[in-house]
Amino acid sequence: MIRVVECSILLPLHFVHVLVCPRREVKRFIDLSADETSDLWLTAKKVGRQLESFYMATSLTFTIQDGPRAGQSVPHVHVHIIPRKDGDFEKNDEIYDAIDESEKELKRKLDLDEERRDRSMEEMAQEADGYRLLFS
Amino acid sequence: MIRVVECSILLPLHFVHVLVCPRREVKRFIDLSADETSDLWLTAKKVGRQLESFYMATSLTFTIQDGPRAGQSVPHVHVHIIPRKDGDFEKNDEIYDAIDESEKELKRKLDLDEERRDRSMEEMAQEADGYRLLFS
Repeated sequence: MIRVVECSILLPLHFVHVLVCPRREVKRFIDLSADETSDLWLTAKKVGRQLESFYMATSLTFTIQDGPRAGQSVPHVHVHIIPRKDGDFEKNDEIYDAIDESEKELKRKLDLDEERRDRSMEEMAQEADGYRLLFS
Repeated sequence: MIRVVECSILLPLHFVHVLVCPRREVKRFIDLSADETSDLWLTAKKVGRQLESFYMATSLTFTIQDGPRAGQSVPHVHVHIIPRKDGDFEKNDEIYDAIDESEKELKRKLDLDEERRDRSMEEMAQEADGYRLLFS
């Protein structure tokens, strides 16, 4: 049951990082309806389980940076999901530096004032095929 | 509608820190039923909104440390909620060091091998009165 949310996947250098967001573009978590809130987290839970299994991880970090003072760069509410395992970061908290970096990277990608290279249809189709298998 | 979750509030030295957890004691987020997942996050959203308003904050940090490798010390799934505002932490990511410290403190409080002082009925009643007003 994925009705009102979607997910996008970032693959920075050294860790898997998935974002799940509602289709409707709202800035803050409080702006979501009850249905959207439930769907968002039921989807995040499902995606987390599949990622943990696929990447042979043992734990998951879930975070919403809800508002600029919490580190939100892109004004479209989203859940960060990171599969975690032994030795992924020297100190646990380094994951949050990495999330902040990804948040800034995401902003740069979405920022129409900066140059961006769209992925080709082939690249996107290949990625979609992989996720179709993973989340089916 | 708060059916299956409850919240407890930690007040360390320099920031407000609220935990929302399901009544049923399960370790991992994936162990929650769909109803529990929805209730958990609808409650977290409501609590977050009230805290942000009450503490005149502008943002919220929501996090689940889901499993030991993500920093979870207490094997009972819980959402960390921290109201955020200008100047609360010099660097945004310091909040996560603070969460980790609180997680360890919570474990010490719950650890039956260590001495602990239970709060008096008066203290708990006073605290409950305050939260009743805040969340009513």
